[in-house]
Amino acid sequence: MIETVRYAELPWPVVAERLAAGAPVFLPVGATEQHGRHMAMNVDVVLPSAVCEIAAARLGGLVAPALPFGMRSQPKTGGGRGFPGTLDLSAATVSAVIRDVLTSLFRHGAKRIVVVNGHYENIWPIVEGIELAFDAFGRDRADGPVVIRLDHWDLVRPETIDRIFPDGYPGIELEHASVIETSMMMTLRPELVDLAAATHDGPAQFQRYERYGAPTPEVPSSGVLSLTEGSSAEKGQWLIDDTVDGLVALCAREFGLEPRK
Amino acid sequence: MIETVRYAELPWPVVAERLAAGAPVFLPVGATEQHGRHMAMNVDVVLPSAVCEIAAARLGGLVAPALPFGMRSQPKTGGGRGFPGTLDLSAATVSAVIRDVLTSLFRHGAKRIVVVNGHYENIWPIVEGIELAFDAFGRDRADGPVVIRLDHWDLVRPETIDRIFPDGYPGIELEHASVIETSMMMTLRPELVDLAAATHDGPAQFQRYERYGAPTPEVPSSGVLSLTEGSSAEKGQWLIDDTVDGLVALCAREFGLEPRK
Amino acid sequence: MIETVRYAELPWPVVAERLAAGAPVFLPVGATEQHGRHMAMNVDVVLPSAVCEIAAARLGGLVAPALPFGMRSQPKTGGGRGFPGTLDLSAATVSAVIRDVLTSLFRHGAKRIVVVNGHYENIWPIVEGIELAFDAFGRDRADGPVVIRLDHWDLVRPETIDRIFPDGYPGIELEHASVIETSMMMTLRPELVDLAAATHDGPAQFQRYERYGAPTPEVPSSGVLSLTEGSSAEKGQWLIDDTVDGLVALCAREFGLEPRK
Amino acid sequence: MIETVRYAELPWPVVAERLAAGAPVFLPVGATEQHGRHMAMNVDVVLPSAVCEIAAARLGGLVAPALPFGMRSQPKTGGGRGFPGTLDLSAATVSAVIRDVLTSLFRHGAKRIVVVNGHYENIWPIVEGIELAFDAFGRDRADGPVVIRLDHWDLVRPETIDRIFPDGYPGIELEHASVIETSMMMTLRPELVDLAAATHDGPAQFQRYERYGAPTPEVPSSGVLSLTEGSSAEKGQWLIDDTVDGLVALCAREFGLEPRK
Amino acid sequence: MIETVRYAELPWPVVAERLAAGAPVFLPVGATEQHGRHMAMNVDVVLPSAVCEIAAARLGGLVAPALPFGMRSQPKTGGGRGFPGTLDLSAATVSAVIRDVLTSLFRHGAKRIVVVNGHYENIWPIVEGIELAFDAFGRDRADGPVVIRLDHWDLVRPETIDRIFPDGYPGIELEHASVIETSMMMTLRPELVDLAAATHDGPAQFQRYERYGAPTPEVPSSGVLSLTEGSSAEKGQWLIDDTVDGLVALCAREFGLEPRK
Amino acid sequence: MIETVRYAELPWPVVAERLAAGAPVFLPVGATEQHGRHMAMNVDVVLPSAVCEIAAARLGGLVAPALPFGMRSQPKTGGGRGFPGTLDLSAATVSAVIRDVLTSLFRHGAKRIVVVNGHYENIWPIVEGIELAFDAFGRDRADGPVVIRLDHWDLVRPETIDRIFPDGYPGIELEHASVIETSMMMTLRPELVDLAAATHDGPAQFQRYERYGAPTPEVPSSGVLSLTEGSSAEKGQWLIDDTVDGLVALCAREFGLEPRK
Repeated sequence: MIETVRYAELPWPVVAERLAAGAPVFLPVGATEQHGRHMAMNVDVVLPSAVCEIAAARLGGLVAPALPFGMRSQPKTGGGRGFPGTLDLSAATVSAVIRDVLTSLFRHGAKRIVVVNGHYENIWPIVEGIELAFDAFGRDRADGPVVIRLDHWDLVRPETIDRIFPDGYPGIELEHASVIETSMMMTLRPELVDLAAATHDGPAQFQRYERYGAPTPEVPSSGVLSLTEGSSAEKGQWLIDDTVDGLVALCAREFGLEPRK
Repeated sequence: MIETVRYAELPWPVVAERLAAGAPVFLPVGATEQHGRHMAMNVDVVLPSAVCEIAAARLGGLVAPALPFGMRSQPKTGGGRGFPGTLDLSAATVSAVIRDVLTSLFRHGAKRIVVVNGHYENIWPIVEGIELAFDAFGRDRADGPVVIRLDHWDLVRPETIDRIFPDGYPGIELEHASVIETSMMMTLRPELVDLAAATHDGPAQFQRYERYGAPTPEVPSSGVLSLTEGSSAEKGQWLIDDTVDGLVALCAREFGLEPRK
Repeated sequence: MIETVRYAELPWPVVAERLAAGAPVFLPVGATEQHGRHMAMNVDVVLPSAVCEIAAARLGGLVAPALPFGMRSQPKTGGGRGFPGTLDLSAATVSAVIRDVLTSLFRHGAKRIVVVNGHYENIWPIVEGIELAFDAFGRDRADGPVVIRLDHWDLVRPETIDRIFPDGYPGIELEHASVIETSMMMTLRPELVDLAAATHDGPAQFQRYERYGAPTPEVPSSGVLSLTEGSSAEKGQWLIDDTVDGLVALCAREFGLEPRK
Repeated sequence: MIETVRYAELPWPVVAERLAAGAPVFLPVGATEQHGRHMAMNVDVVLPSAVCEIAAARLGGLVAPALPFGMRSQPKTGGGRGFPGTLDLSAATVSAVIRDVLTSLFRHGAKRIVVVNGHYENIWPIVEGIELAFDAFGRDRADGPVVIRLDHWDLVRPETIDRIFPDGYPGIELEHASVIETSMMMTLRPELVDLAAATHDGPAQFQRYERYGAPTPEVPSSGVLSLTEGSSAEKGQWLIDDTVDGLVALCAREFGLEPRK
Repeated sequence: MIETVRYAELPWPVVAERLAAGAPVFLPVGATEQHGRHMAMNVDVVLPSAVCEIAAARLGGLVAPALPFGMRSQPKTGGGRGFPGTLDLSAATVSAVIRDVLTSLFRHGAKRIVVVNGHYENIWPIVEGIELAFDAFGRDRADGPVVIRLDHWDLVRPETIDRIFPDGYPGIELEHASVIETSMMMTLRPELVDLAAATHDGPAQFQRYERYGAPTPEVPSSGVLSLTEGSSAEKGQWLIDDTVDGLVALCAREFGLEPRK
Repeated sequence: MIETVRYAELPWPVVAERLAAGAPVFLPVGATEQHGRHMAMNVDVVLPSAVCEIAAARLGGLVAPALPFGMRSQPKTGGGRGFPGTLDLSAATVSAVIRDVLTSLFRHGAKRIVVVNGHYENIWPIVEGIELAFDAFGRDRADGPVVIRLDHWDLVRPETIDRIFPDGYPGIELEHASVIETSMMMTLRPELVDLAAATHDGPAQFQRYERYGAPTPEVPSSGVLSLTEGSSAEKGQWLIDDTVDGLVALCAREFGLEPRK
């Protein structure tokens, strides 16, 4: 069989052996959500999965299957439920999946787990899911598991952000389907991007509050919240490198893991 | 961008257009579960995804992302929770994901949905999820959606089963990680199968009841419930062909869809 | 007071004493569901209750009250929600009842519990309920309870099936309201059967998939999925004898219980 | 088949016909709970079932199967969870069963439903279940169903209470397993009562508050909260007559139903 | 900072110190519910909060923030959901808040907790919430917490009731917005009462059952279930004194706490 | 009775009249959470309640009772569950309260609702609660309600932030118990602040990820995440003014409401 870091592409004895040896397990959590006219809807799955796989390869880790559905898209961070195509889970559903997958991993003896999120709206349901997993497994166990949670964009170094946005960073929330995500997709899955199809109807100018029961007219009709101009595979590589370095560094700091040469 | 049937690899306007044109949406539902020493743990994702993709290509359909986690594995059909590696969802979690994904699709106007299951234990949580989706969406709507649910192995023709099992078919439940699944994996993802790694400790001889709170010693230590001997990519192709033909035929019968030449 | 195996017909000190002595507790789980024009709707309660009571009498056991409501009836196994009269519980409700009753029994020190199901659709919600009960009670307790789960029809010997169906067995799913159930009712509660009222509009010819959001025209209008012809109290007695023998044998095998002479 | 008011002992066409004709449906809700050393644990099922059946016979009504499990027993009204034998459901479980059974009945066109409770602790979970059923079914439907909820002891006339308790009524909460329940059981199921086995360790003197996380030493060890002395089948008949008359009168008042002669 | 018994008006180190010293924690649970034309809707919050604060001052205790929303108002005890203004929680929501607040307190080492209810309908959801808190925290812990639950009106001495109702007490359920509650509000928050605005359309004459799916015409249009005549601040003080004395006495009895001079 | 904007301090007819006249309803959502050694734990309740009340007075609005308990405190935004004193709700509980209160308001005809959050961790459970309220009430109603959701700190003008933080703003997440919250409390409830009790052990230097199952040593032992130095009642007033102006402006923009002179 193949050599791989993908948990689900291995037979069980290999996974059992790696877990027993202390391998970290990465769990990407994504969404199926509109990402503009110029990009596929699987961006929030592709990006965290890719950085997890590269980092896992350097650390002898495993990457669990990504959850391909995410928390209800919100207008200000993803276009909202009105957008065609987006598949929404409720908060309780996301939390339940995270809880169940983590408690399965806990039961198999995984002690070092890194949940890598790719969809802004998932942040809090993932937090809740982790808390529920510890509730279900028992918090008082000696030598219990540690779970790290992060959003992949938070590992990008400020210097890289400055390099990509010399005129100022609009902030990660507005980055939906914009330069960061587009560039990373151009590196990883260029066949799923067509910059020529991008329409330039952003950036969005949102109110400092949210409306429910009424439309959010500030959402650009393309679904791109900021801008796609200036996206490139080269910038995508910078972002991926930073993120992977960040994952490797945190595994060193938190778990005492040495990256492979 | 690429031509594909994969829902999540398309930009939203293409998905919106295809749904408006009446494209059927296939939703594969799988698991991450031990499948013997000789095979990867993603069998229940790979098989339904593959048949959905081939059928969708013939029908102008779309294939939603597969749910890669499944209902709690049971000893008699998958080895059970004791097996290393298997990731279990509770019944309520599986049903909640199905409910939420289906109601999202209903909201986008999908009228023709086919849920294709690859993990025996998922059957009833999927049924419940479908019922909950209709509860949530409203059952009385005129021109409402139709959801078909099936297990991919049920579309195999009896003649094919007879051809594969000239000495008698052990039944689908015992087929876990056995000839049917192994053969289909050999056709679709041969790099994830290593027949040489198979240990021959089956077939399982189960009692006609199930035990909880006590081990199930009848589960072979390999996790293969029946036998792997005789598996081949050729047989896998027969099974895939039957299943795809079955999917195309049901879309013709239920939805009036003509397969493409 | 009377001598009885019925848990709820005894005063608490007698139950406490029997549980302390290791008596097995049988829990029948049924439904209120249409069973054709010729039979009452309590078939799925009567049959498992009866076999539990006969077996309990031979084993010094107790029979808890039967749950008289069952999981949502499905067209292919019970006629479906469209049928007048059928009372449906959702999956989560069935599981919650099973969880709560089992954890009550666990708390009272019951170590040997046999859940005997009489309604096909209940299988998976019962499994989930058992799993939830162990989650609630704690799985790591030394000397914890053991729960056996089964469907009463699975204890019938193949020889008996062959004797009843010399022309071939249609399978238990199609047996809804058909020869097996009708015969057993004729033995146990003949006043609730009127063979003359049976209409012969079966057997059903189902597709190999299920439809939701659309009717299932394959369901015979009587609600009988196979045939009632040939039902008899004598055959019912064969079935009951087999099932009771099976219950007694499993209690011997799993719990080391000797049947009374 | 037999003539009966029992919903589940009828074939579906008879039930369908009676519902179409406006028959009221009675739903008894009980418990399996200790009722002293002198009585079976099914008191809370037997009593409401019996009065429902007698009333239904006078009104052409139907009696659905009783729920034989009830809300967590409390020390001051039933002895509490510490008592051997008692089977407890959580509040959410009781409410879910009531919700599901009622929505099934609503779907079949039942417009006149009377929920008759026999277990004090069930009151509020039943109320919640009824509210949830209307939430699920929709509250705005023209010509929707009406559900009446009551506790069978509330239909007893004050004159009868005075006659039974010439020295003063201790109140229904203390009446657990005491004169009212014992007398009614002596009328209905005398074989399940053995007054000679009663121990006289009551009446309980409770604080005006409840303790959790600590025992309730005020509960008499017999489980009888008040007294059994003076119980008789004759008094039981008075109570049953009052209750049935009350049920018939409320069906006249609320539904315009005329009792049969 | 100020000297106060209010948990939330203290900085964390003071609370931590008091809990470590064994201070009892009072948790008032209220509602926002119509209380007649003559009174504010926060009666069920004001009354339990006030008696808790006075008692806590005498006992060195703490008073947690009151839950200002309560269980669905019922026609016979509060006017019902039809009344303008009333804010209803479902039973599961009330129970969940109680469970979560109690488990937080348990985690902080609180061992002596008194839940003081001010809204009749809250009784059973509070009971369930307490049970769920013990389920979540673990019931088998040595030196675990004790939770006392009560309704503030139950601590009033019979002599006081006789003094206030020389012509007979209508019972606490009918007392909604009537003399007891009005008098206590006149003592505690006179600016929230305007007796002149009271309309005299009671007392209500309810049936001995409840209707759902149909109005309850017996509810007086003012929302006052009994009478407001005779309410006075003096009577309110009697009621408050009794209740506070009762709280102090129970803390002495159950926790061995000496009131301060 | 008094003139007030507080929903619960009014009798029901006044609330009914104001709702019928289109009054906006403000719903503050807070927490009971450690806020350093120098401040009470009710900060997240006091601040949103105060700005809602001032704004409501200018707009003829109503202020519903604040929820005094909040979503599980997280280390990076509030110190986390380890901190003594903090009372945590689970995400599902917060969402359930929001859902139930909003659906009650919807039922009473409230069309203009503003949910004002004071506790960072509440953001997403509130969003979910709003979505669930629309699910429960029905999304397709003509002339349905509109709900605005915001965090009170987001209405502060950038100029004010610059004025308060001339050396740079640490960001709202780190502002827990720091200059913004302390200054506002000094304006509103000075008796609940004691700057002299502040210990200067911040600002926190968090990792760009979160740990679960292990402590977060970066949390300062005081619980103040940034700094308290420079807090003043004057700055508090600037913040309050901005926030109230923001609330008034959004009611003008979204609801067409004119502020009173």
